[in-house]
Amino acid sequence: MLRFGILGTGRIGDMHAGIVAAQPDACVTWCFDVAADRAEATASRLGARATTDVDAALGAPDVDAVLIASPTDTHVGLILKAAEAGKPILCEKPIDVDIAKVEDCRRRLEDYDVTLQLGFNRRFDPSHKAVRDAVAAGEIGALELLVITSRDPGPPPPRPILEACGGLFRDTSIHDFDMARYVLGEEAVEVYAMAANRVDPIFAELDDVDTAMIVMRSESGALVHINNSRRTNYGYDQRVEAFGALGMVRSNNHRPSEVSRHDAGGTARREPLLHFFIERYRAAYEAEIRAFIDCVAAGTRPPVTFRDGHRALLLAEAAIASWRENRPVRVDYGDS
Amino acid sequence: MLRFGILGTGRIGDMHAGIVAAQPDACVTWCFDVAADRAEATASRLGARATTDVDAALGAPDVDAVLIASPTDTHVGLILKAAEAGKPILCEKPIDVDIAKVEDCRRRLEDYDVTLQLGFNRRFDPSHKAVRDAVAAGEIGALELLVITSRDPGPPPPRPILEACGGLFRDTSIHDFDMARYVLGEEAVEVYAMAANRVDPIFAELDDVDTAMIVMRSESGALVHINNSRRTNYGYDQRVEAFGALGMVRSNNHRPSEVSRHDAGGTARREPLLHFFIERYRAAYEAEIRAFIDCVAAGTRPPVTFRDGHRALLLAEAAIASWRENRPVRVDYGDS
Amino acid sequence: MLRFGILGTGRIGDMHAGIVAAQPDACVTWCFDVAADRAEATASRLGARATTDVDAALGAPDVDAVLIASPTDTHVGLILKAAEAGKPILCEKPIDVDIAKVEDCRRRLEDYDVTLQLGFNRRFDPSHKAVRDAVAAGEIGALELLVITSRDPGPPPPRPILEACGGLFRDTSIHDFDMARYVLGEEAVEVYAMAANRVDPIFAELDDVDTAMIVMRSESGALVHINNSRRTNYGYDQRVEAFGALGMVRSNNHRPSEVSRHDAGGTARREPLLHFFIERYRAAYEAEIRAFIDCVAAGTRPPVTFRDGHRALLLAEAAIASWRENRPVRVDYGDS
Amino acid sequence: MLRFGILGTGRIGDMHAGIVAAQPDACVTWCFDVAADRAEATASRLGARATTDVDAALGAPDVDAVLIASPTDTHVGLILKAAEAGKPILCEKPIDVDIAKVEDCRRRLEDYDVTLQLGFNRRFDPSHKAVRDAVAAGEIGALELLVITSRDPGPPPPRPILEACGGLFRDTSIHDFDMARYVLGEEAVEVYAMAANRVDPIFAELDDVDTAMIVMRSESGALVHINNSRRTNYGYDQRVEAFGALGMVRSNNHRPSEVSRHDAGGTARREPLLHFFIERYRAAYEAEIRAFIDCVAAGTRPPVTFRDGHRALLLAEAAIASWRENRPVRVDYGDS
Repeated sequence: MLRFGILGTGRIGDMHAGIVAAQPDACVTWCFDVAADRAEATASRLGARATTDVDAALGAPDVDAVLIASPTDTHVGLILKAAEAGKPILCEKPIDVDIAKVEDCRRRLEDYDVTLQLGFNRRFDPSHKAVRDAVAAGEIGALELLVITSRDPGPPPPRPILEACGGLFRDTSIHDFDMARYVLGEEAVEVYAMAANRVDPIFAELDDVDTAMIVMRSESGALVHINNSRRTNYGYDQRVEAFGALGMVRSNNHRPSEVSRHDAGGTARREPLLHFFIERYRAAYEAEIRAFIDCVAAGTRPPVTFRDGHRALLLAEAAIASWRENRPVRVDYGDS
Repeated sequence: MLRFGILGTGRIGDMHAGIVAAQPDACVTWCFDVAADRAEATASRLGARATTDVDAALGAPDVDAVLIASPTDTHVGLILKAAEAGKPILCEKPIDVDIAKVEDCRRRLEDYDVTLQLGFNRRFDPSHKAVRDAVAAGEIGALELLVITSRDPGPPPPRPILEACGGLFRDTSIHDFDMARYVLGEEAVEVYAMAANRVDPIFAELDDVDTAMIVMRSESGALVHINNSRRTNYGYDQRVEAFGALGMVRSNNHRPSEVSRHDAGGTARREPLLHFFIERYRAAYEAEIRAFIDCVAAGTRPPVTFRDGHRALLLAEAAIASWRENRPVRVDYGDS
Repeated sequence: MLRFGILGTGRIGDMHAGIVAAQPDACVTWCFDVAADRAEATASRLGARATTDVDAALGAPDVDAVLIASPTDTHVGLILKAAEAGKPILCEKPIDVDIAKVEDCRRRLEDYDVTLQLGFNRRFDPSHKAVRDAVAAGEIGALELLVITSRDPGPPPPRPILEACGGLFRDTSIHDFDMARYVLGEEAVEVYAMAANRVDPIFAELDDVDTAMIVMRSESGALVHINNSRRTNYGYDQRVEAFGALGMVRSNNHRPSEVSRHDAGGTARREPLLHFFIERYRAAYEAEIRAFIDCVAAGTRPPVTFRDGHRALLLAEAAIASWRENRPVRVDYGDS
Repeated sequence: MLRFGILGTGRIGDMHAGIVAAQPDACVTWCFDVAADRAEATASRLGARATTDVDAALGAPDVDAVLIASPTDTHVGLILKAAEAGKPILCEKPIDVDIAKVEDCRRRLEDYDVTLQLGFNRRFDPSHKAVRDAVAAGEIGALELLVITSRDPGPPPPRPILEACGGLFRDTSIHDFDMARYVLGEEAVEVYAMAANRVDPIFAELDDVDTAMIVMRSESGALVHINNSRRTNYGYDQRVEAFGALGMVRSNNHRPSEVSRHDAGGTARREPLLHFFIERYRAAYEAEIRAFIDCVAAGTRPPVTFRDGHRALLLAEAAIASWRENRPVRVDYGDS
């Protein structure tokens, strides 16, 4: 039985806590949040203890591992505290939107031998994972073209969230950079980004963009395309298409049911796509936590690491430089 | 070059004539119709001679074969005339809606050695044919269940046409009885039909039905279901599903294009199905005429025979008896 | 917090217990099974007490409701015991395969005022439910044709299960009879069944069938078709198609993911369908338990009642009579 | 009746000639080819005169219009000859692969008032056209993202054809540049191209590429992505996806039939896509010729002009410069 401390019990932390509790070999024992009522709400539902003192949760002997789902700018601090406490960590993405903080964290983590899994949940989605597994198994031969469509269901989030999120490339495209690395099985080495303001004036006010197209080249020469929008009105549009010498494999969109309608207005009409990331990626969140528990139990390396978070952010930085300077940018992974 | 006389140049005859003319090894030389203007319209477009005298067309030395597309109640007479003239015949379905006339025609045809292909065009549809070919090739193992959906795009045709058509089972279901025999590769031996009046009061006035469900058993024990309606409002709904020990193969509906729409009202919305039989079965009509020309050239037996028309009508008669008497009916093929 | 006693903790009971435990307002307090180890396995996982004495579970003050998931032939006895104990009941389908026992149970239940929800789980499937909701809302106008495809993933279950199950019509088709009643919103009044042995010789040995086609007529004149097979090799084939004056709405099959493959062997290839009923109907089982908890909390009538189970069984009996005597059968609902 | 001279009766010219002959208001009277047997083959099939002297065809009084389907490097010469002869012209794409020749041709055409329609056939495809019509009608609101997938069925054509074709961007992507302009309804003003050699070493030998990803920005700020490959093994992959403020409309792939297969290897498996451009774009070629005939009859401006060919080639030149110099390139349309 792996006993979790949940650090941050807002919407996402509460969801994670419920998934932990549903596992036969895991439970939630402590819930920390700076807001006492939020910590209490999750804790009481799951028979756990609530606290607003993170050290109480980290120091508790009945906490075997922590799940960090607090605001992004607290991730690095909590990662280091948990590492010091010697607790295995499952941390929501991103590590941070400030590359300097991420690199400082990386250096300081060298002092610890701690299990840290980063929450790139989409790697665990059954449809996206099937694409990656097919590529890795050689089903489509050498990968030649990878096309990732990733458009948020709209409208855009409120201004304070947008201000803190690091912008489109660090907040949204970062999932796609990670997906590209996951499916490619190698690094992207060159990035070109074209972007625009098409959705809402707020993005321009924040010196950000809401619409983007990115192309990348991988080490071995495969080409990657990502397109992003901050809004659709038909649901969460999330697709991955891998094309190679022997064929193509695609991850298509998910809907609430398999019903279709046929009438004078058209045929085969399906429902809007699953709208919200918690619904769309429910199975992925479950598999992610399952994988973390299994890794801790087995003492193996987690399937998504700090380095994956660092490198995805380096791709976001490259895309931002490319967009601002309107030129292709080589990615320098340094000692990441 | 196979030179055709077209007997009957209404809408369907005119369509057939155009397809003949588009073949590299066939042409139309004579057009007969009781309405001089109709005969003239088709003939002038194709550089053929028009006539209202059927014997002129049948006796013309530059007519190598005839295509009968006149009203149903004239088919038997024209078949016998053409047989007497020794011209290969492609005749629109049905032979007749009166089983006694069909059986009399069968006996009288025994005096002639004439090529006669019956116009069950759906056998030539690429999608339906792929189902039959898969079954015949053993792809799905022994056939166990066959489900045929066949619903006319609405509204129903005008009263005079309905009065002459022989009713739903002889006019519409007959295509499905033939499709069942085609896919089964054997005879249906028992029929039960349940029917209703749901679409338009005119059908009840004519002692006919507009909605039906039929089940049949084949010689070897496969089960068949047909469902019919005289009206849809989303286009011509035409599907065939064959299920067997090793899998399932389906013929799905056709649309004018492959465009799909995704918006707040739903996703993956396609256009209404192809509406009219001339559009939906265009490729089938072309392949049907192609097959006839090839048979005549090679001197081989046509792929759809008089016997196929006779037996499909016997199934319609059995369905009518079943519906009227509300009991399953064994089919007596006699010497058909 | 609704505290459940689970009566029967085999595969299905254990699944139900896990779903109960995942609800925020319900928990499992007692687990009964005739096999102590099975009761213990479920109980220990969920922090409940295990017993092999059903009266201990039914009499426990910390049991507010019972979920019956024991073998079918024990359902009636447990229903009556629970009714006597005054505990709301969620009982797996069927009530019993013996119509006499069901009718006796019905009469004896008249002495109690107990909430009883029957486990026709498919009514809660999001896809099937969307079909019924569309019909009930008038989206397709008057219902004219209803086609239900229901084929078990193979191979057939072991002989002892087949011997106890009551045969294809009472075991498999009964779900489809209930689905028909659910979508129709009225009763089916006439049934004709054609059946065959195509899958495995064991069914003939048991005087049962493995393949069937059924047609029914509803009170208002809509026509219904059901087709069943005891085996597919592409997964659990479960579809509902409702056709009416204004259009068609369909519930299509579910798959593990949305991945598709395109190569020299074909395009758009999807995975096999979800195979096992526990996977295929997972969301339905969750919604079913959710509905029961809500009914008990609100004191309202459950969405699936004893009468629904009784009437579906009467349809199965009619289908059996129709198949054995090869004639359409009127359904006598008597005082059901 | 519009009487055509066909200039060039290779595979494509012969196809065009057959389509012309199938129109009710057009016919082929002359066939020119440098190879007498090719000219004769088409002419004899359609009752036309064959010649190896292009001036004979152009000067014939019974030629009202010409269709140029000769090798690309002869297009400009024949366009000018036909213009001088005052015959309306339908010319296969591209005008030429040498931008200097195209610009010279443009200047010399200023002396003539001749109808010239360029053969960008894909504009007439019913699926692609439906996308453009939906965008033009405002169905998806302001266009934000346009994604064009265009991959040739393999293997690559023989070396001499590759040597003459002008390379991937001028030969293949040019269709996609035109499609982008067609759907956008405005110009692309900036181009970035990333390309690779993944398919066959011959492309590198010819200093060409076989795999490419392009991004473009339109005048109003919409973003466009094109991806190309010289080979698929599942057929001709041709898709257009337009995304805007109100939704998305897509043109999906075409197949020979609507059959699908379901077995132990997977479900919903469709046939490979239509393979060859003559099959895939058959309906488009027919609509293209139909549009030309209608324009000539009505004296209106053709729907695809010399300028469209010129501007698509300017985009190809920009893409080539971008690829070679690895930088985004502004497109200078000059006085095109």
